[in-house]
Amino acid sequence: MGLSTAGVVLLSGGTGGAKLARGMADVAGAERLAVIVNTGDDIEIYGAHVSPDPDLVSFWLADSIDDRGWGLRDDTFEVMDAMRRLDVDVWFNLGDRDLAWCVERARMRATGSSATEALAELNRRVGVRSAVLPMSEDAVRTWVRVDGRWRPFQQFMISDRAAGVIEGVEFRGADSAAPSEAVLAAIRSAEVIVIGPSNPLASISPILAVPGMGAALSQAAAPVVAVSPIVAGEVLKGPTASFMAYAGLPLTAAGIAEHYGSLLDGIVADEEVPGLPTLRADLHMDGADGRARLARETLAFAQGLGGRV
Amino acid sequence: MGLSTAGVVLLSGGTGGAKLARGMADVAGAERLAVIVNTGDDIEIYGAHVSPDPDLVSFWLADSIDDRGWGLRDDTFEVMDAMRRLDVDVWFNLGDRDLAWCVERARMRATGSSATEALAELNRRVGVRSAVLPMSEDAVRTWVRVDGRWRPFQQFMISDRAAGVIEGVEFRGADSAAPSEAVLAAIRSAEVIVIGPSNPLASISPILAVPGMGAALSQAAAPVVAVSPIVAGEVLKGPTASFMAYAGLPLTAAGIAEHYGSLLDGIVADEEVPGLPTLRADLHMDGADGRARLARETLAFAQGLGGRV
Repeated sequence: MGLSTAGVVLLSGGTGGAKLARGMADVAGAERLAVIVNTGDDIEIYGAHVSPDPDLVSFWLADSIDDRGWGLRDDTFEVMDAMRRLDVDVWFNLGDRDLAWCVERARMRATGSSATEALAELNRRVGVRSAVLPMSEDAVRTWVRVDGRWRPFQQFMISDRAAGVIEGVEFRGADSAAPSEAVLAAIRSAEVIVIGPSNPLASISPILAVPGMGAALSQAAAPVVAVSPIVAGEVLKGPTASFMAYAGLPLTAAGIAEHYGSLLDGIVADEEVPGLPTLRADLHMDGADGRARLARETLAFAQGLGGRV
Repeated sequence: MGLSTAGVVLLSGGTGGAKLARGMADVAGAERLAVIVNTGDDIEIYGAHVSPDPDLVSFWLADSIDDRGWGLRDDTFEVMDAMRRLDVDVWFNLGDRDLAWCVERARMRATGSSATEALAELNRRVGVRSAVLPMSEDAVRTWVRVDGRWRPFQQFMISDRAAGVIEGVEFRGADSAAPSEAVLAAIRSAEVIVIGPSNPLASISPILAVPGMGAALSQAAAPVVAVSPIVAGEVLKGPTASFMAYAGLPLTAAGIAEHYGSLLDGIVADEEVPGLPTLRADLHMDGADGRARLARETLAFAQGLGGRV
């Protein structure tokens, strides 16, 4: 998977991080990018293994993401429609091509492939040349407590429409999980480590909750910079605000910096963060040019902090 | 499932037996029909539980069978097409709506439903009012040996195109299987028992190989008649000829009668069978009229043998 040559390591969830991954592939070169992705949202359903965040990153890198922001472009929904006609409660929507991808992953895993190997093989088949790395081979599942009730992350996001005040977040299984060998190798060989503009609590925290991940990142030779998901005081997509509120963090770049703490050598944001090297940048990623611009500026900034990109 | 009122019990595979089932539902009334179906061809694939013969019977009874003779009418194949684009060897083709049906069955079974309950619930949802009964709750799998190599039935049928000389047939798991309670109840309450014009060796023998099935049929009050699958000396569909040759049986109604032996009180065929009450009938089942005609003649014949239809 070309990990020995990984120059840029990006930690990512499925939203802003995935978009930035696409820009990074353009700027740094696809082969020099490794993306470490949250698997806390994974779900086994319809006989398939669905891995929402790694797949969003993969679909972005394959230029096949749909404009709606999830799933594959021009996908059909024949199977879900048929399920509905069979009176199945289809709370989790998945396109036919998406289902095929996830069924094939389940088959690979059932026949001995690791999560890392299965996704690498799927990506190889669609021409993705970057390494998209599940954070761990061990199952970690994000649960959220709202109104006294614990819910798996996808059910909270979809069935509950992310409504309600978050009272608790757990990354179940994290205590006994470990980063994959591929993840550790990527971090060791990284020249720059970027924490993408994903939900810090719901998307990046599961990655950092894997024992050994924080130490590997702290001990890496590469500088670590975060790209803030907060744009002009707001979050562009997803329930980041609710999660920040739960964590008692202000919805500002300083709040993001506080969350990541000593892990960061710098931050890319649209406002100054006192006490931390800050690159003030336009965080919008409109089109390929916008994604490449933010990727280029982030890499240049990290280089100034000691990176060798 | 209305088993206490089952008047007609039909043993069936997926081809001729399924067509006759549709005719029987018209003639005897859907609620008075119970079909005991071979599950030796079942296969778990694509995260789904595919049950080819019970599903063909169900699709016939739901008037949703495709003209090609398998699968659902107007089904699409988006998932299989997507698999092929992912370089998956799609040797087993399944439509999107068919897949949804089989995925939902797998979900039901994984959450505690029996094979009988899952199929009854699926059929209820599509309006089938007959009982379609898997022969057993226990897994029985038909294997075929050709050229010294044992193959699961579906792989022999599809990947090998049923080619070669059959050297052996095994119903693996049958020794430790039992008829389901629903099957035994249907046989006990039957007024007529019909062995459908399915492949005697590949489709009916797995049913009869389940310990206790033969005894239940022999001890039933109802007469047992077979409808021959051999029409004008030929088999209309499927590899019945190869299986009959393997069993050392002539491809005649007498060969069919010899195969079922003392189980039969009579046979419906297009030629006389010496020593066995025979109804000579036109075995073609062209259209709804043709299916109903053969069903009506078969029931009347059985009635003359002592049935109470």
